[in-house]
Amino acid sequence: MNDLRPENPFAGGAAYIDGHYMPIGLAAIPITDWGYRRSDVTYDVVGVWQGSFFRLDDHIRRFRASMQKFRFEPRESDEDIKAILNRCVALSGLESSYVAMDCLRGRPAPGKPYHPVHARNYIAAFAIPWVWVMSPEVQERGGHLIIAQTLRIPPSSVDPTAKNFHWADLTRGQFEALDRGADFALLLDSEGNVTEGPGFNVFMVINGVVVTPDAGVLEGITRKSVIEICVDLGIPVRVGKVSAAEAREADEIFLATTAGGVMPASRIDGRIMSNDRPGAISMKIRETFWAKRAGGWHATPVDYGAAVAV
Amino acid sequence: MNDLRPENPFAGGAAYIDGHYMPIGLAAIPITDWGYRRSDVTYDVVGVWQGSFFRLDDHIRRFRASMQKFRFEPRESDEDIKAILNRCVALSGLESSYVAMDCLRGRPAPGKPYHPVHARNYIAAFAIPWVWVMSPEVQERGGHLIIAQTLRIPPSSVDPTAKNFHWADLTRGQFEALDRGADFALLLDSEGNVTEGPGFNVFMVINGVVVTPDAGVLEGITRKSVIEICVDLGIPVRVGKVSAAEAREADEIFLATTAGGVMPASRIDGRIMSNDRPGAISMKIRETFWAKRAGGWHATPVDYGAAVAV
Repeated sequence: MNDLRPENPFAGGAAYIDGHYMPIGLAAIPITDWGYRRSDVTYDVVGVWQGSFFRLDDHIRRFRASMQKFRFEPRESDEDIKAILNRCVALSGLESSYVAMDCLRGRPAPGKPYHPVHARNYIAAFAIPWVWVMSPEVQERGGHLIIAQTLRIPPSSVDPTAKNFHWADLTRGQFEALDRGADFALLLDSEGNVTEGPGFNVFMVINGVVVTPDAGVLEGITRKSVIEICVDLGIPVRVGKVSAAEAREADEIFLATTAGGVMPASRIDGRIMSNDRPGAISMKIRETFWAKRAGGWHATPVDYGAAVAV
Repeated sequence: MNDLRPENPFAGGAAYIDGHYMPIGLAAIPITDWGYRRSDVTYDVVGVWQGSFFRLDDHIRRFRASMQKFRFEPRESDEDIKAILNRCVALSGLESSYVAMDCLRGRPAPGKPYHPVHARNYIAAFAIPWVWVMSPEVQERGGHLIIAQTLRIPPSSVDPTAKNFHWADLTRGQFEALDRGADFALLLDSEGNVTEGPGFNVFMVINGVVVTPDAGVLEGITRKSVIEICVDLGIPVRVGKVSAAEAREADEIFLATTAGGVMPASRIDGRIMSNDRPGAISMKIRETFWAKRAGGWHATPVDYGAAVAV
């Protein structure tokens, strides 16, 4: 028997732009908006896994801090934004979802001075099916990393703690990785220390200590979760400088991001780590991370009933 | 008598996105496109003044070079792009127009690896009414400049000769200018030399010599035109380093951009130059620039008949 219920137009994803909800395929940014044209926009991404947001309040707090750093003043409050994100997920009906929130500059109205202060800032958001930055197959064998020649944009130019779309350096790094037969690039700062990669923080395991860079990086929420898990498990963890040379000699490396959790690597600049498989400490942290998630750690259940009231 | 002809729906501007023409108000970029979401896009802007493009071939050549630097491969040829720009202007009917061309990464199709190489790149373009980066009123009194604390993104991270929307540093500079009661910011590199400002190159007049920075800047087409004009007029001109201290002590400063031509300044970091009015050399170059434009210098007339065949 056929299912005669009409298909949910939001099934592929649902979006909100400046007061209006729509299917993801209709969600678009005006080509003249400075959010696109000057990448004058900040964003955040929160994960929904098995029907619950993870660390929603942490993401909202960071998003608000990013907006303040860029001097964005949208009309939506934090509570409004939480309700918008919930409704996007509820409309889509997705059990596991990549949920993004953006705040865009807008553009000064014609006749106004050509300065960002004269633009009306606004919120956009969407929920789409879960995204794996590193596919499950690659997670199985461990990612192959390179250290890119391209350097990460320095904090003296763009504050990396205010999440932004200034990714040309990261994208260039991804092409370097492609050209060298690898999956992902890690970028250095101008002093030769490891910063981050395209969409993730990085952790090195060096002589039994888990180390993650302290500067020039996004203060990731999965990164914070990993640090907490290390403390729980009694694994020594340190936030500090890691040179390229130290990274190349690390015992293990893993990556951390909302869109993928804890993602182990098995090669760095062609050198094989841990028998060409994810290392033991990385796997322990990864397992613990997902077990805690399944157990409701920092979980905010989605209110799927909110879909009705559009 | 009333004009009973229907209003041209393209009168406010006309756009092209990936094969389709539309009024500017309908031109938008998918919120999930990496052209927006990773600012993985390059662009160029050519001016139309009194019915003619200025240095169209130079802009197309630079746009193609930018695309190659970012490894974009859209389906449109240079001739296609010229025809698209012409048609956007023709549809709008604008006599003077700001004409933009973008090449966007797109996004890998679902199921494809999450790498930019798997995205289909495409062209967007539009023609809107002429934009003055510096309003005619401010040009009259001369712009008030500051040297920002924020540093320009360095070439080791993002190649400034490949025109891009990585503007967070420039936008931050504009807020510094606002906070200090000025109009525009100039940004330095990490060695304290002047680079450029939001959307323009900068020229200093120092002891009768016109100097513009050689590194960390877009190779502007108006900049090139200014250099040619200096040679024509017998004004000594040099492309090289200019320190912040030299800029603060300059006799005159002017800015150069497609969206405004040659734009004189009258103050730098609060110091008054040239009696608080545009300087004599700046004005001579500005007048010559517009006189040459009016005389058909590097002009390609718009074929307004191309509007019919949409």
